[in-house]
Amino acid sequence: MSLAKITPLSGFPEWLPAQRVIETHCVDVIRATFELHGFVGLETRAVEPIDRLTNKGADTDKEIYAVSRLAESRETGPRGGQAESQLGLHFDLTVPFARYVLENAGRLTFPFRRYQIQKVWRGERPQEGRFREFLQADIDVVDVGALPNHYEAELPLVVADALRALPIGPFRIQVNNRKIPEGFYLGIGLADVAGTLRIVDKLDKIGPAAVHELLVLAGASTAQADAALTLAEINATDASFAERVRALGVTHPVLEAGLAELTAVIDTAGEHAPGLLVADLKIARGLDYYTGTVYETQLIGHEGYGSICSGGRYDALASDGKTTYPGVGISIGVSRLLAKVMPGLTVTRATPTVVVVALGSEQDRPRAMRIAAALRRRGIATEVAPAAAKFGKQIRFADRRGIPYVWFPASADPEIHTGQSATVSDQVKDIRSGEQVDADPDTWLPPTQDLRPTLIS
Amino acid sequence: MSLAKITPLSGFPEWLPAQRVIETHCVDVIRATFELHGFVGLETRAVEPIDRLTNKGADTDKEIYAVSRLAESRETGPRGGQAESQLGLHFDLTVPFARYVLENAGRLTFPFRRYQIQKVWRGERPQEGRFREFLQADIDVVDVGALPNHYEAELPLVVADALRALPIGPFRIQVNNRKIPEGFYLGIGLADVAGTLRIVDKLDKIGPAAVHELLVLAGASTAQADAALTLAEINATDASFAERVRALGVTHPVLEAGLAELTAVIDTAGEHAPGLLVADLKIARGLDYYTGTVYETQLIGHEGYGSICSGGRYDALASDGKTTYPGVGISIGVSRLLAKVMPGLTVTRATPTVVVVALGSEQDRPRAMRIAAALRRRGIATEVAPAAAKFGKQIRFADRRGIPYVWFPASADPEIHTGQSATVSDQVKDIRSGEQVDADPDTWLPPTQDLRPTLIS
Repeated sequence: MSLAKITPLSGFPEWLPAQRVIETHCVDVIRATFELHGFVGLETRAVEPIDRLTNKGADTDKEIYAVSRLAESRETGPRGGQAESQLGLHFDLTVPFARYVLENAGRLTFPFRRYQIQKVWRGERPQEGRFREFLQADIDVVDVGALPNHYEAELPLVVADALRALPIGPFRIQVNNRKIPEGFYLGIGLADVAGTLRIVDKLDKIGPAAVHELLVLAGASTAQADAALTLAEINATDASFAERVRALGVTHPVLEAGLAELTAVIDTAGEHAPGLLVADLKIARGLDYYTGTVYETQLIGHEGYGSICSGGRYDALASDGKTTYPGVGISIGVSRLLAKVMPGLTVTRATPTVVVVALGSEQDRPRAMRIAAALRRRGIATEVAPAAAKFGKQIRFADRRGIPYVWFPASADPEIHTGQSATVSDQVKDIRSGEQVDADPDTWLPPTQDLRPTLIS
Repeated sequence: MSLAKITPLSGFPEWLPAQRVIETHCVDVIRATFELHGFVGLETRAVEPIDRLTNKGADTDKEIYAVSRLAESRETGPRGGQAESQLGLHFDLTVPFARYVLENAGRLTFPFRRYQIQKVWRGERPQEGRFREFLQADIDVVDVGALPNHYEAELPLVVADALRALPIGPFRIQVNNRKIPEGFYLGIGLADVAGTLRIVDKLDKIGPAAVHELLVLAGASTAQADAALTLAEINATDASFAERVRALGVTHPVLEAGLAELTAVIDTAGEHAPGLLVADLKIARGLDYYTGTVYETQLIGHEGYGSICSGGRYDALASDGKTTYPGVGISIGVSRLLAKVMPGLTVTRATPTVVVVALGSEQDRPRAMRIAAALRRRGIATEVAPAAAKFGKQIRFADRRGIPYVWFPASADPEIHTGQSATVSDQVKDIRSGEQVDADPDTWLPPTQDLRPTLIS
């Protein structure tokens, strides 16, 4: 590593210790919430065969990172020429999970609830809130053959429980059902449902006038473009959205199915978390595998930042040709969320250490190590000073790191602690208050809030 | 995903839910131990510039996975042609950490203690205990300019604390100091230290006769090969190894430095964990960046399985040309360790769920969800039954998953619970004992050992 210049890689964020304390806290909260709701934690490998990744949506293939063995082309014989050259890094956790379900279906119990918190990779142009490597936290429920609709109401309630426990301020989960625009477009004679959805999806970015223009360019009549925009602009926190859609006078069986499903989701959510979910008929999601309910989540006050938690129902993603495993899932964009809220957060310290055991001379190290071991046995994170040093230097060592306590072992011979406050019993000093008291490593306990770093928002 | 055949990828292990409970337990124990010892948790990105990876050792370049954007060659303009084509997946956590230290030196406090638990990738031929994607758990201490030797004794004591808390049986940490063979070889006139080390490193695999033959083939005299083998066969749990080396009559200042450093490590370890560390003079480690103390770890009774925890001191890995950050680190091979011990372990259940709330009819779902929310508020992982079903089916649902409790909401109208045991207050059944009692979701608590899945070894 010597001599070469080190520059950060754009789009591959790395946290400093204090930021990592915040990230770890958030991931722990998310994991604990998912487990409280009975989701099983899984991890899948980072790579998938590229053909499995590329047939999951028109927009995804240009984002994929291919993986190949560096030495592969140079090699012959049994180690060369294997299929690894066809591998890519996963761009989400849903496609790998669907593959995992197919691979292990005989060893899982259904309906299967799983959570998965892992890095994913997308070769997109890095920009605010968009990274090339980022952490996602997903929950999904899959079942065999048919999946009850009530899971579509349950999943946003679970992530809402997690998000409410994070230091991120107020948020709004937006829900739509793809069957609504699909049935509506078919009802007004727009046959290119996917193309129309893709244009309407740009509404927040480019505005209604530009969307209207694109729709007409794509072959819609002015009246059809007007109708598609009117539908997209409907939103409500209760089932009234359905009446507003029906008032537009378009009828189609797919539209009716979508309205019924979305009404059920909004009604259930309204009972358990009033106002949390908003039916928002412009939500579409970029990934092609969604077939019904779709979710996005805005931070209130930062609507332009993009969704920090998204997902939807997918009926056909996991199928082996004989059996289909329909699922619904939702994913918290942990890195994107943290990039937004971290600048407003600090932590009490950037290390787990509660106590530094001071060292008067290097000969005291064995005794200092025994004191540290006694404190650790009772759950108190402790390190021994890196070197023998004077009183003031030991305090500064702790102070620079935000470590709240310095432990001074008893001096059998005060003479060897030149320049230090020699004591006849162990003492511990709270360096914030300056208070110093006699203490026994087998019984002393700091206040609970000092045991680990905590967030200050 | 439909129709395509699903086959596992050799070398990329994925756990089933019960196995993942074991892995999560072990990682939690390791993390808690590292934090008790004052190590700061970090993560680094998965990719590094390939030139940083390839100049870290002769054996590593053929193991590297290169990463490139799939669409890169097809693109022109500002998104194409960037440096990403020169990226590779990291093969360990030490090289990325050294780069992180150089990149962030001004924002870290030294000596810097960090732990890092992440996947790494090596394109090796998969075999027992060797994967292409695997989890490592590392601790390192780095300092500026000089690093005190006492950290070389401390680090194996930290991982020993972690390993002793894992269900892995007895183990043995073997320590050597590269200066010992280096000084010894120079002292007997063998100038190709690296080449000699590489041959002696095969001792456990191919035996002393074959090593002797290879050494002679490489240019050593019979007497030199004999001496190198005699040195390699020395091991001891106390400082007596040094006397046995000195008795061989070879003198060299590098040898003396190595003996002194290893004696200090063994003496310190002997005081805090007698018998845990073994001075074993054949240990060399494959990676080129180690410059002094090196570690390996054997599971006792499975010595041929290879090291499950390795590391060493590196003096020159992190340097920007002006400042050097010497370090010492040790890495638990979590995946390798688990692959060995998992077959002997089971868990009480493969889901976090403690309680399933039974559902007499779909209209009861809102009430069941409120009961579940009340239980979760007090830390009891709960899910609501996937569908309304009869008594027996709800019990079987829980039983198949090892979920210990089924909650029966009170029936306002027993008539709607056809075929079920209608009750006037909520009841909870321990399906293991069959005991069923009245219960209030705001006060009921299961025994602590039921709150999460636990290991049975």
